[in-house]
Amino acid sequence: MLSNHLQNGIETAKLVWSRLPNSEEAEQEDPGLLQRSDGSGTESLDYEVVENYAYWEEQEQRGKLYVGYYVVVKWFFALLIGIGTGLAAVFINISVENFAGWKFALTFSIIQKSYVAGFIVYVFINLVLVLSSVYIVTHFAPAAAGSGIPEIKGYLNGVDIHGVLLFRTLIGKIFGSIGSVGGGLALGKEGPLVHTGACIASLLGQGGSTKYHLSSRWLQVFKSDRDRRDLVTCGCAAGVAAAFRAPVGGVLFALEEVTSWWRSQLMWRVFFTSAIVAVVVRTAMGWCKSGSCGHFGSGGFIIWDLSDGQEDYSFEELLPMAIIGVIGGLLGALFNQLTLYISYWRRNHLHKKGNRVKIIEACLVSLITSFISFGLPLLRKCSPCPESDPDSGIECPRPPGMYGNYVNFYCSKDKEYNDLATIFFNTQDDAIRNLFSAKTIHEYSAQSLLTFLVMFYSLAVVTFGTAVPAGQFVPGIMIGSTYGRLVGMFVVNFYKKLKIEEGTYALLGAASFLGGSMRMTVSLCVIMVEITNNLKLLPLIMLVLLISKAVGDAFNEGLYEEQARLKGIPLLESRPKNQMRKMTAKEACGQRVVSLPRVVKVADVVSILRGNGHNGFPVIDHTRNGETLVIGLMLRSHLLVLLQSKVDFQHSPLPSDPRSGSRPTRHTPSEFIKPASSKGISIGDIHLSSDDLEMYIDLAPFLNPSPYIVPEDMSLTKVYNLFRQLGLRHLFVVPRPSRVLGLITRRDLLIEDNEESATVELQSTSVRAWRRDRSASTRNGDAERPLLNGLLVQGP
Amino acid sequence: MLSNHLQNGIETAKLVWSRLPNSEEAEQEDPGLLQRSDGSGTESLDYEVVENYAYWEEQEQRGKLYVGYYVVVKWFFALLIGIGTGLAAVFINISVENFAGWKFALTFSIIQKSYVAGFIVYVFINLVLVLSSVYIVTHFAPAAAGSGIPEIKGYLNGVDIHGVLLFRTLIGKIFGSIGSVGGGLALGKEGPLVHTGACIASLLGQGGSTKYHLSSRWLQVFKSDRDRRDLVTCGCAAGVAAAFRAPVGGVLFALEEVTSWWRSQLMWRVFFTSAIVAVVVRTAMGWCKSGSCGHFGSGGFIIWDLSDGQEDYSFEELLPMAIIGVIGGLLGALFNQLTLYISYWRRNHLHKKGNRVKIIEACLVSLITSFISFGLPLLRKCSPCPESDPDSGIECPRPPGMYGNYVNFYCSKDKEYNDLATIFFNTQDDAIRNLFSAKTIHEYSAQSLLTFLVMFYSLAVVTFGTAVPAGQFVPGIMIGSTYGRLVGMFVVNFYKKLKIEEGTYALLGAASFLGGSMRMTVSLCVIMVEITNNLKLLPLIMLVLLISKAVGDAFNEGLYEEQARLKGIPLLESRPKNQMRKMTAKEACGQRVVSLPRVVKVADVVSILRGNGHNGFPVIDHTRNGETLVIGLMLRSHLLVLLQSKVDFQHSPLPSDPRSGSRPTRHTPSEFIKPASSKGISIGDIHLSSDDLEMYIDLAPFLNPSPYIVPEDMSLTKVYNLFRQLGLRHLFVVPRPSRVLGLITRRDLLIEDNEESATVELQSTSVRAWRRDRSASTRNGDAERPLLNGLLVQGP
Repeated sequence: MLSNHLQNGIETAKLVWSRLPNSEEAEQEDPGLLQRSDGSGTESLDYEVVENYAYWEEQEQRGKLYVGYYVVVKWFFALLIGIGTGLAAVFINISVENFAGWKFALTFSIIQKSYVAGFIVYVFINLVLVLSSVYIVTHFAPAAAGSGIPEIKGYLNGVDIHGVLLFRTLIGKIFGSIGSVGGGLALGKEGPLVHTGACIASLLGQGGSTKYHLSSRWLQVFKSDRDRRDLVTCGCAAGVAAAFRAPVGGVLFALEEVTSWWRSQLMWRVFFTSAIVAVVVRTAMGWCKSGSCGHFGSGGFIIWDLSDGQEDYSFEELLPMAIIGVIGGLLGALFNQLTLYISYWRRNHLHKKGNRVKIIEACLVSLITSFISFGLPLLRKCSPCPESDPDSGIECPRPPGMYGNYVNFYCSKDKEYNDLATIFFNTQDDAIRNLFSAKTIHEYSAQSLLTFLVMFYSLAVVTFGTAVPAGQFVPGIMIGSTYGRLVGMFVVNFYKKLKIEEGTYALLGAASFLGGSMRMTVSLCVIMVEITNNLKLLPLIMLVLLISKAVGDAFNEGLYEEQARLKGIPLLESRPKNQMRKMTAKEACGQRVVSLPRVVKVADVVSILRGNGHNGFPVIDHTRNGETLVIGLMLRSHLLVLLQSKVDFQHSPLPSDPRSGSRPTRHTPSEFIKPASSKGISIGDIHLSSDDLEMYIDLAPFLNPSPYIVPEDMSLTKVYNLFRQLGLRHLFVVPRPSRVLGLITRRDLLIEDNEESATVELQSTSVRAWRRDRSASTRNGDAERPLLNGLLVQGP
Repeated sequence: MLSNHLQNGIETAKLVWSRLPNSEEAEQEDPGLLQRSDGSGTESLDYEVVENYAYWEEQEQRGKLYVGYYVVVKWFFALLIGIGTGLAAVFINISVENFAGWKFALTFSIIQKSYVAGFIVYVFINLVLVLSSVYIVTHFAPAAAGSGIPEIKGYLNGVDIHGVLLFRTLIGKIFGSIGSVGGGLALGKEGPLVHTGACIASLLGQGGSTKYHLSSRWLQVFKSDRDRRDLVTCGCAAGVAAAFRAPVGGVLFALEEVTSWWRSQLMWRVFFTSAIVAVVVRTAMGWCKSGSCGHFGSGGFIIWDLSDGQEDYSFEELLPMAIIGVIGGLLGALFNQLTLYISYWRRNHLHKKGNRVKIIEACLVSLITSFISFGLPLLRKCSPCPESDPDSGIECPRPPGMYGNYVNFYCSKDKEYNDLATIFFNTQDDAIRNLFSAKTIHEYSAQSLLTFLVMFYSLAVVTFGTAVPAGQFVPGIMIGSTYGRLVGMFVVNFYKKLKIEEGTYALLGAASFLGGSMRMTVSLCVIMVEITNNLKLLPLIMLVLLISKAVGDAFNEGLYEEQARLKGIPLLESRPKNQMRKMTAKEACGQRVVSLPRVVKVADVVSILRGNGHNGFPVIDHTRNGETLVIGLMLRSHLLVLLQSKVDFQHSPLPSDPRSGSRPTRHTPSEFIKPASSKGISIGDIHLSSDDLEMYIDLAPFLNPSPYIVPEDMSLTKVYNLFRQLGLRHLFVVPRPSRVLGLITRRDLLIEDNEESATVELQSTSVRAWRRDRSASTRNGDAERPLLNGLLVQGP
């Protein structure tokens, strides 16, 4: 027989545990529990038991109505994320377009009189905008620097970097990227928009920001990390959908690039969010068409319509397209490598010196960018306008203050244009539009394109990693479309007969560079199709992406993976490493396991928590005859909560009786839930008197009674798959079992939904059966067993 | 101490096992092992051990070269699948278009003289085509009936239905669908194309068809089910890409609808296959433009270009669009329910009577369809042609023998057309093109559309489930676009001012019906966008799909799920059932576990295999002092192979010495691999002499030494997630462990690839460590342990 208090312990755990999986969502969530412990010095949390328990309690109170409410809120939140991200994107775009438009209009009007004055004004405006951006980031929201995609990817993989999803990060990201993009740096606003969407989603998921008193109780429905992660996934998709007006691309981006655990149920909700974003953006743009948004409306959201471009392509063109793919792979891999080196150097030398250095650095980059973008076109001789084709609707030079090709900049004659200024002295969106434009053959000279490519590539590398919000999409498109157009020029000259547009090659170049750098495939392809509104080029984009990704993969990893590794975000990849095949589960366990008994002395808990950094502790109870039994997993964070509140301390070293019923109500489950945006308690924060230290805690009600287990000599690849696929955080390595009680096959899991009543009956009998079996098995264990020469037939 | 032969047993298992995970792909494959046992009366197979061993052997011979070869072959196969499926699609399309074109041309030329003669010829041609189709299916390839998508879905979920992926099924599917679609039945060729792609992929995966001597040794690289499943996934995507010329849609279809275990690495390969299909189809169509493909080229592949349709939409239109969504949900759910009833009735009554009944049934359906499609337009009065608009390029009536709107059929005057004949007396592709067409407002009367809707809906329901290859995509689009256009007509009449095209509403109707019936979301949306070549309608299609799916879900499951259930394909859904929350792992184990000892008597094996239908048996060995230890899982199929070959029989009941080295070479691993297209051995096929029955087999070299385990009282939802996520087939339910040897966290799994040498060293020391630990632990187990009041600190 088991000793009484072990029996009680199991009963208690079973009691709590049997109540756990009551909410529709609760039981599934353990796969998604977040690992906050590793790599970034933050705390670890496992909400499993307590949170499920919370669900159970809440649900028993509210019943089916609550489940319905829960589903409605989920969809309502998806709607809110869509609207919020859409509005944020519209706001950022209107601001950027107005700042940039006003800047260029002012500069153009001044340079009619003096180029020197115009230059000074131009540099000054850029400097102020960049300064505001870097100031916001360094002094208010340090986590808003960069694109944020590696961090979000890490979050969805299970690593929480402190501060990434705060309200202040959201604000910093929005205003910072207005400054940095409006200030003309070689970076984009698309990556930051993905981060913005994720922030909005995360803040909604925790019911607002507690620090800024913006939280609301009725919004705090989502207490599980899985739900929050689902929302953040929606937010990412919304960000891409808003950035590129590419709803399908957004869904695919979330699926391919950022999430680690994709569930098919989620796809529909993500899709809904993207659709909402598309509607919001479309509505806002319709409203802006009337001219109420200032400069926005004429330039506006990035959509480079190529639908009137090249209709057809011939087989001869496949070779130059393949060459574009190879160039993209090479330049993309080089970009990843250079940015990696520079970021590494920045992190270890420059940025250690404090915020002042960061600000100076950003201002320097701004000055260099302004000098180059203003100065280089000045050195360039103007070209005469081509004979105008009244059908194309393209004027040369473009009318002042408008957007378009053929910019007249420092030209002596009226009918001339400066091809370098057309791409350099312009907003990036307009430059790309000009590069993509059809019916403008030989607008650019090879010399200008090459100059621009070299200068802009260098600027993009240098700008990457400064302390401002910075996306790499638009710079990547700029770089790619430049060499794409360059190749296109040669193709036009070489195959004179074919109807070839240089703009098409520019598009393929853009795709190839992004493919070579970010290594996205399907999502990038769909995004390119959606932003150019031309489905006919799809197979060509696919071809170019295949080549550029393959070439890039030969050199290094994708941009986000490299950056994540540099930032110390330990991403668990979807496939195990090669050498894991030769290792066993036990060999992988790095540290000594520290186990806790069921009823533990407070002083012992404190010394254990102080003595090591483990986040999970097996809880072991024992029978009267000395046999031990693992009854569950206790988390550091939960122990800390217990130590802090002290209400569960008891004087007796014996387990408390679960049937008294007082135990589970002492703690409200929400005490165990860590808000996403704070660091949680640490052992140093807890102060206990010497009386407290002499008391005991019964851990049974608070542990996770059935963590996943693996036998000690299982291959590590198998263990990895289990860990990664289920998104676990702790896995017990146990000895080989001595017997098999049952075998679960597919058939056993095919239960029809309408057996509800039968199951309930089964449940009530099974508790008795379980007890019987347990005592029987222990009895068997005590007795001498004969040597088994024949067959071992064991009942269930 | 463990007894010697147990020690040996574990050593042997460990010996084999330690060699297993050597190929890059091998170790991951156990997630994907196929469950052939349940539901459909076929056999079960677990390739794990033996196959991994095969990899190991082969790889040790060939080394790194082999891995490179393996990767190249994988991509080469993706290329071949793309080319094969593309060519199959082109062949089917050319054949169908030529048969149908010739049929309509002949009929039209005859009805200029006599409608009766024309009618007879029309009916006769249809009958012959349908007869050929149903004859092929019933007498040659019974598995080719229907769309095949539920079966493929089942295969990818882990259920193998015999015959679905055979070479004869492929042939039957291609020629059968030419007959059934060319014969004018209310069904499509798109579902069958998905099946065709899957067949091509599967045949490639097993290196050709062994039965028809089309196999090639060098192609037989893919011995694991995971690789084959990946290929079939590629095939499905290729099928959709070929059917709709929608490469992105194909990838998403494979992802959303058919696969159960998606890996992000697979996406890129699937994408590549789809791109190849797009190129093949495009090339073929370019070649056909010159007129070398007969009637094909003018009609051709389904692409209903709407890019010159409605540009914009206003908020007032959202209401009628929502109504379309609701109608689609209702009609789609009704369609699923009706086809379910009819299929059920067919299966249990009609089709039991044999092939003759199936043939008569198909012919009857063909006759009815011909009568309705020819007869109904006859009853309809012709309408006068609208005033022609030279800009639109649409003639009225259309020139004879051409494809287009405004069919002159049984009209008294020249300048008249028959609107019912325009949609009814036409190939489905052309009918849809006419329904989608813009700039043809009021071409159809409400009466005609309503008549067509009712008749075609009934025909589609009746045709579904006849013994011919049949897809539901095109009939669904027909039905949906009819009521969509009907709603569009009212909208045009109601909002007179807006620039509204009825064709846009027809498209939305089509999307809504497919959404209401098949419940696909993202993939359907992308497919609709790709086939209409109009990205601007994306948000509208999303809206309509959201509504129709939600409405449909209120009534029943999707078409494929309902059909899969009817066909007895036990799909494991991605989320566990509600009542699993209240059950434990042990309660779910249905049958008594039958364990085997390590060295088992042949007679006992035979009696066990005869006595039950289990597919997996735990193998248990014991120590000298009576303790038992589970050493692995033995599969029925492997036991059968052992019994059949007899080479591993031994006289001694003691384990053979693994160090003699003779054991592993007696069997070539390929003996254990079941070809995908045969049924495998059954116990009835094996005949053993009485001498044989008295011998023994040592199972140690053949078992899977570390299957996944769960503790007995784990919640069934957790067990389900483990089982489903890793695609398992057998799961051991074991008692709670007595101690924890280690704890695996994220940190332990973050191993860098460059630690190769260190790992190898670790491996060699760990074997010794493992032995030490094992003997130590058993010693501890024998000794009396004191009551543990303090802390249990256990070393790794």
